[in-house]
Amino acid sequence: MSTVKLIEYHESSEEVKAIYDDIMSVRKSDWVNNFWKALANQPKLLKDTWNAIKSVMAPGSIDPLTKEMIYIAVSATNSCNYCTNSHTASARAKGMTDEMLMELMAIVGMANKTNALANGFQIEVDEPYRNGGLQ
Amino acid sequence: MSTVKLIEYHESSEEVKAIYDDIMSVRKSDWVNNFWKALANQPKLLKDTWNAIKSVMAPGSIDPLTKEMIYIAVSATNSCNYCTNSHTASARAKGMTDEMLMELMAIVGMANKTNALANGFQIEVDEPYRNGGLQ
Amino acid sequence: MSTVKLIEYHESSEEVKAIYDDIMSVRKSDWVNNFWKALANQPKLLKDTWNAIKSVMAPGSIDPLTKEMIYIAVSATNSCNYCTNSHTASARAKGMTDEMLMELMAIVGMANKTNALANGFQIEVDEPYRNGGLQ
Amino acid sequence: MSTVKLIEYHESSEEVKAIYDDIMSVRKSDWVNNFWKALANQPKLLKDTWNAIKSVMAPGSIDPLTKEMIYIAVSATNSCNYCTNSHTASARAKGMTDEMLMELMAIVGMANKTNALANGFQIEVDEPYRNGGLQ
Amino acid sequence: MSTVKLIEYHESSEEVKAIYDDIMSVRKSDWVNNFWKALANQPKLLKDTWNAIKSVMAPGSIDPLTKEMIYIAVSATNSCNYCTNSHTASARAKGMTDEMLMELMAIVGMANKTNALANGFQIEVDEPYRNGGLQ
Amino acid sequence: MSTVKLIEYHESSEEVKAIYDDIMSVRKSDWVNNFWKALANQPKLLKDTWNAIKSVMAPGSIDPLTKEMIYIAVSATNSCNYCTNSHTASARAKGMTDEMLMELMAIVGMANKTNALANGFQIEVDEPYRNGGLQ
Repeated sequence: MSTVKLIEYHESSEEVKAIYDDIMSVRKSDWVNNFWKALANQPKLLKDTWNAIKSVMAPGSIDPLTKEMIYIAVSATNSCNYCTNSHTASARAKGMTDEMLMELMAIVGMANKTNALANGFQIEVDEPYRNGGLQ
Repeated sequence: MSTVKLIEYHESSEEVKAIYDDIMSVRKSDWVNNFWKALANQPKLLKDTWNAIKSVMAPGSIDPLTKEMIYIAVSATNSCNYCTNSHTASARAKGMTDEMLMELMAIVGMANKTNALANGFQIEVDEPYRNGGLQ
Repeated sequence: MSTVKLIEYHESSEEVKAIYDDIMSVRKSDWVNNFWKALANQPKLLKDTWNAIKSVMAPGSIDPLTKEMIYIAVSATNSCNYCTNSHTASARAKGMTDEMLMELMAIVGMANKTNALANGFQIEVDEPYRNGGLQ
Repeated sequence: MSTVKLIEYHESSEEVKAIYDDIMSVRKSDWVNNFWKALANQPKLLKDTWNAIKSVMAPGSIDPLTKEMIYIAVSATNSCNYCTNSHTASARAKGMTDEMLMELMAIVGMANKTNALANGFQIEVDEPYRNGGLQ
Repeated sequence: MSTVKLIEYHESSEEVKAIYDDIMSVRKSDWVNNFWKALANQPKLLKDTWNAIKSVMAPGSIDPLTKEMIYIAVSATNSCNYCTNSHTASARAKGMTDEMLMELMAIVGMANKTNALANGFQIEVDEPYRNGGLQ
Repeated sequence: MSTVKLIEYHESSEEVKAIYDDIMSVRKSDWVNNFWKALANQPKLLKDTWNAIKSVMAPGSIDPLTKEMIYIAVSATNSCNYCTNSHTASARAKGMTDEMLMELMAIVGMANKTNALANGFQIEVDEPYRNGGLQ
């Protein structure tokens, strides 16, 4: 089911249990998904990754639903089946409609197309676009 | 400057001129960027791509600024220098602040990290996440 | 099971049989994995790929276990399920512990994150790093 | 100019000189490109790679110009500037017209788009397409 | 089966039915594959993508079978299981032999290898190759 | 030079200065590279990324030089020019010889080739390799 053993709650250390508890508390859920059970084989990786993702996905100048949709965009581009499924589920839980998912994927498809065209034609960046338009 | 000749306005056909005019009109700008000048070597590719991007990036259930940020997310993941610069410039022009760009890139970095972890550990999709949580 | 027929030992030519024998001999194993059975549809591709991989993965200035771990790093990044599973199995057979796999994946995750950040911000290479620090 | 020293003809070993001579002979050219000069730091890698590429790109059931165009398709998708430029130059030398390059890139753009859509929607392979339609 | 509902013919709108009919007519087939059933959740995306792919894959200066093989090259590079299977099936239906598929994959493998080498050594583009040899 | 302003030491906050000091102290160096100056636009991203990379790259069951080489492998595969140059420089500083870099790249090239072949042929994972050989 994965290339490392998945560490279940009942067999985990106190350190890991505390993170699992925090994951469930933040998500208002009663289960922990496989991703974290794999990372638990190295508690430091589990802890750092969870703390970082909790912070990154929190409300800020970008709202949480938009953040999930950006996550889907990257995961589809990288052909990550696990992340595409899990973040699509999270986005739906946060209110993403079918209409929004279709619009999102239309952009993701278009961006992958024009990325290939720009790279394939080796197009030089226009002067006004250099440094992302930074003055 | 690119692996195909860039077609300038003054040397383009009426068909291409009409599309260049539409690009400048929609963008309220007085110049056409290199990407379109490369595509103009095949007017059908230019026309279809421009019409599709105009439609995809228009306001809908996702707002235009968010759409530009999704474009940056894909372009950074694909290592497309041209698209990263041009869409960062477009996003700034539509109101993206430095704070928003930093939050966006924090998500893009995190997604690329967890994509690699999920693929590298070959983690099985949890039952509730299958089909993106589609009921 | 694959988009080409897998060529089994008993139905293969003498040329292919000789390579299959070498694969099993070098690996001290009594079976040949599917990857080679697919390549056997073009004996030259089978032979060249096997000879090259045998040479590349042999002990040198980098030890064989480290070489397997580098293979996993690339395969996880490329989302290759077959290669991720097969080279993780090979690395384990050569002594990779769970601790080592977790450390490896922590690096792979971090590298994918910072690659996306460096590309996404279009960061210029610092002068001392140019040409990889080559004097 | 690269992260390893480029080995020039006059400073190379007899083994490397022989390969450089073969490269120039096969290509009817009087110079060797930087790619091979980098690989020459490990003569075995140089020799194996050159022999394999010479064989792979030779006329077969796919003609040499088509082979160069397939090379461009992969290089554009991988964002490899060196290979995109060098194989576009090779394809032009073998007769690729601007019209053909534009058609090629239209396919490459479309394929990158639909790859992202199929991965992003996690679409299941239709029964008749399984194993690439292999009976 | 996918992260969006697949829209079957009998439950689709007149607009979608017309496109499904065109897909079956152009392909001389009596079924529609899952990819289009997913896109049908946004009729505009379905219509634009189908019209573009119909145009891009039509006979031109590159023949339809070669176009399918280029599609396979990109899909294998991007790790898109759906597109690799469906376009391999399409290529076979258009006459691709096992010999041709093996030659194609030999190029795709080689290109992915040399792309990684050229990027990994950061090799500078030789002067004659700049702009893809464009004069 | 990048799509965000690079924050120099003299203009940075106390929080950022403390991290810059730690970077220079850990690396026994008197300068900070551009990557961190870009991240400093969001001190939390700077701090978390630096702390994580410091931990991930520290000696463990994998030695620091090997860790740098794994970083190069991922960066070459992702076409990240910045990371390829900077980590090649770091690896050289830690003792990587030209011979080691050539061996590393031979593996990276081979892995990218066989990843494309395994994905392109859609090869099924052999039973003994499932879950990376995990018992």
